[in-house]
Amino acid sequence: MSPTTTVRPATPDDVPELLAMIRELAEFERALHEVQATEEHLHRTLFPEHPAVFAHVVEVDGAVAGMAIWFLSYSTWLGAHNLYLEDLFVRPEFRGGGTGRLLLQTLAEICLERGLPRLEWWVLDWNPARGFYETLGARALTEWIPYRVDGEALVRLAEPR
Amino acid sequence: MSPTTTVRPATPDDVPELLAMIRELAEFERALHEVQATEEHLHRTLFPEHPAVFAHVVEVDGAVAGMAIWFLSYSTWLGAHNLYLEDLFVRPEFRGGGTGRLLLQTLAEICLERGLPRLEWWVLDWNPARGFYETLGARALTEWIPYRVDGEALVRLAEPR
Repeated sequence: MSPTTTVRPATPDDVPELLAMIRELAEFERALHEVQATEEHLHRTLFPEHPAVFAHVVEVDGAVAGMAIWFLSYSTWLGAHNLYLEDLFVRPEFRGGGTGRLLLQTLAEICLERGLPRLEWWVLDWNPARGFYETLGARALTEWIPYRVDGEALVRLAEPR
Repeated sequence: MSPTTTVRPATPDDVPELLAMIRELAEFERALHEVQATEEHLHRTLFPEHPAVFAHVVEVDGAVAGMAIWFLSYSTWLGAHNLYLEDLFVRPEFRGGGTGRLLLQTLAEICLERGLPRLEWWVLDWNPARGFYETLGARALTEWIPYRVDGEALVRLAEPR
């Protein structure tokens, strides 16, 4: 019998598994040392009264196989919100069976239901999943470069001149 | 007497000037044909009861000189929201006098006040402002590539397999 794969919104009970998968994905991205998130951070940000970030989990025969963590971004050109996918992760043992596509399909459905014209995310340049994303119709916006100010530079930038 | 430059949150009365500046920026970015936003879109997204996108305007001696349009993004590694700057624009005649820096300084202050550890935005690879941003402490995250699904590809991705 083929396995049953389902996607559902995450609940507070999923926080330990979500944090575990955030760490598994960061390890794959060679950035485990950058993970500072705790279960308490996730409870506070994913499950307040008015959340501004959302999580879905995918289960295969009842086992948590992956997740998508996303929020609403915005395009001034469209005057509309979009869906920004912060993290997409499928555990290695569940890859290749349509699990990742089902997560992205769920997010695409949310876009259409809510009138969000774009689904966007960042991918590391060496990530072999780029080819998979392109087969699903995603295109690389290579002309755009993300910039970041944080840490001491952010404190300095906040100082009046 | 040197000009007085001030930054303030935008109000619904600013919508015509905001749309004008969105179009001026898109023209600079060689993408005026991609602007579909109308005043009605901006009213609906910037000024609902619970907005998820925000605008500031900078004035020089009372004239609208520029704007910043931003929203809260999220980092799973930090378990925290960040500030994502969707559009930063200073009208050409007001550039070079610290106007752009004052807008970014205001956003950096918001980050520190609200505990948002990062200020992030995308820049077109040929935009000469990249050097200016780097002098302000921003660094290019060249290892990350933005991906997008929209239009027909989004409709196809939402179809069950």
